[in-house]
Amino acid sequence: MRHSARGQVDPFIVMDVMEAATRAEASGRHIVHMEVGQPGTPAPAGARQALADALSQPLGYTVALGLPALRQGIADLYRRWYGVDLNPTRVVVTSGSSGAFLLTFAALFDAGDKVAMGYPGYPSYRQILRAMSLEPVGILTRPEDRYQPRPQDLPDDCAGLILASPGNPSGTVLRLDELRGLTDAAAAKGMAVVSDEIYHGLGYGDRCHSALEVTDDVFVINSFSKYFSMTGWRVGWMVVPETHLRTVERLAQNMFICPPHASQVAALAALDCTDEADANLAVYAENRRLMLEGLPKAGFDRIAPPEGAFYIYADVSHLTDNSLEFAAEILDRAGVAVTPGLDFDPERGAQTLRFSYARATADIVEGLRRLAEFMASR
Amino acid sequence: MRHSARGQVDPFIVMDVMEAATRAEASGRHIVHMEVGQPGTPAPAGARQALADALSQPLGYTVALGLPALRQGIADLYRRWYGVDLNPTRVVVTSGSSGAFLLTFAALFDAGDKVAMGYPGYPSYRQILRAMSLEPVGILTRPEDRYQPRPQDLPDDCAGLILASPGNPSGTVLRLDELRGLTDAAAAKGMAVVSDEIYHGLGYGDRCHSALEVTDDVFVINSFSKYFSMTGWRVGWMVVPETHLRTVERLAQNMFICPPHASQVAALAALDCTDEADANLAVYAENRRLMLEGLPKAGFDRIAPPEGAFYIYADVSHLTDNSLEFAAEILDRAGVAVTPGLDFDPERGAQTLRFSYARATADIVEGLRRLAEFMASR
Repeated sequence: MRHSARGQVDPFIVMDVMEAATRAEASGRHIVHMEVGQPGTPAPAGARQALADALSQPLGYTVALGLPALRQGIADLYRRWYGVDLNPTRVVVTSGSSGAFLLTFAALFDAGDKVAMGYPGYPSYRQILRAMSLEPVGILTRPEDRYQPRPQDLPDDCAGLILASPGNPSGTVLRLDELRGLTDAAAAKGMAVVSDEIYHGLGYGDRCHSALEVTDDVFVINSFSKYFSMTGWRVGWMVVPETHLRTVERLAQNMFICPPHASQVAALAALDCTDEADANLAVYAENRRLMLEGLPKAGFDRIAPPEGAFYIYADVSHLTDNSLEFAAEILDRAGVAVTPGLDFDPERGAQTLRFSYARATADIVEGLRRLAEFMASR
Repeated sequence: MRHSARGQVDPFIVMDVMEAATRAEASGRHIVHMEVGQPGTPAPAGARQALADALSQPLGYTVALGLPALRQGIADLYRRWYGVDLNPTRVVVTSGSSGAFLLTFAALFDAGDKVAMGYPGYPSYRQILRAMSLEPVGILTRPEDRYQPRPQDLPDDCAGLILASPGNPSGTVLRLDELRGLTDAAAAKGMAVVSDEIYHGLGYGDRCHSALEVTDDVFVINSFSKYFSMTGWRVGWMVVPETHLRTVERLAQNMFICPPHASQVAALAALDCTDEADANLAVYAENRRLMLEGLPKAGFDRIAPPEGAFYIYADVSHLTDNSLEFAAEILDRAGVAVTPGLDFDPERGAQTLRFSYARATADIVEGLRRLAEFMASR
């Protein structure tokens, strides 16, 4: 049977690392997981209780844009987090941020359009674009710019720009003036801006700024996966300009019908569980402190300042030209799973690694001990 | 900000009907819902209990293709339902059948490709295709063919063919020889076949046949929404040829990460809840009996034999040239919500209506009484 060209997307390298780690565990080894980009914690207790209470009702289709109370609750979050007064009609609940990207790209771009993004960046941007017959254009960001693009870096022939703050894998954050400079420059070039803010809430310095603080002419994407610790629930949201609401609604009706109802019920309650979410954040903050102390001591000292999320991106060009082999060696000899940079930067990722510190602090301590021992023996 | 051309899909007309019905209810009227395509029953009790029991665990990402036990359970269903021996590696759990269509179209078709389907048919086929820069091509099926396409109807220049049995809105079923004739004809023309089987389990005569009984060279799409009464859970599945597994896996990793974990847990348990599902089926069977008796008496006598699903598609060309106005009149004067055919057949749907009998039998009795009264007074 026929294959499409658009379907031939790149494999996720981190998946191969996870499989190798699983095989090692199956053979009896203990592995520290610094490859996985998700919390080890469950959804907040209040979220799970709310769903348990709702299980006696039929959880049929909701309206395509999501439960009205959830859209209102998310709009309220923008007032609390950013001081932004947001009409809840602009909030669209989605099947994870993945669903939000599919809707955004369908609403904004036509086959053949080019969309720019910083490298390193989240690999699925590139692959979802390809699957929709769009062309990803990588901006090679510099460590001295905290791996974030600058206004003067934007290419001329692109229909869109994806920003990510905090970035994955870098964990670096765009300041308000940087967000303004980038969205202004994009607007001047006729580029639609998509701002990926799924790690908001997980910041370690000043609060993270939303692109909505500087413009309404932006598609903002967020999710309950990270700060609210609900990865597997597949519930996220987007904020769209008024001009695009009807288009996004029709697309959502047809492409998704609705986001998962049970997950929406849990997410609505999660909005009130900030104590639990903040307790998780305190764990990440301690993990980050340990990583920023331990990684350089072990020899991984070329890192961008990780101001958010739960990742550290390290330049290892002084240690290897093959991050794939290097990650395999670390897994094999140190028992620590890490992600080769090639997932995030197809051009320069052979000389970088991503370390995740989303798991329990005891794991981080043990992982750092193993990494130091491995590097000392190398 | 820019709009894409692909994003300008048609509105779902049934949504407007549902809104009008909701407004009527808000004003104090009682409305019988024959417009909605979903069961009024909740997920099976065993499915909800299994999820309640699992809520203490972190429900993080699953692997992209779904929980291995669920894939095995679905493969077992093919043995029980069709006598087909299916390798569970070919089963892909998806975010509803909606997710399965997005994956299927991405894996098979490139921008500009044409994909054929019978009219009348499920409107989202057309809209999802358009959102992915593909071109839907309608085959005008005939009532005397039970609104199903024939092998000689397949166009010459299409990359794919979507079959649906039982069909929505027709409820008609493809027999085994018809499935063989259509898949053979499509293969001869180089068309990839997508077989939508989401109403399987809801059959009222002989059992429904899967396209997998006649060929492995097919994408089969199914869902827990209908027979298992789990619409809002957004969990479905597809069966893909071995040749396309790796492609679909990579696309699923990037486009969805995974189907909702909580819904997968519930779906796995639902597979053992066939007693409850069959009790729902018995209700639909009684509803269908009442509809087949009551609709012709009321004056809706031009209907295809509805052998499955929970829909009846009626030719009302002797009653109206404007199904939109006619449906609005029925809602206003009879207090019964029905769907104008234009959602399903953009070319001929101004002269058809879809009646759903998915709700409780008492509603069906009352709806039929109102329809008869309305038609008598007209």
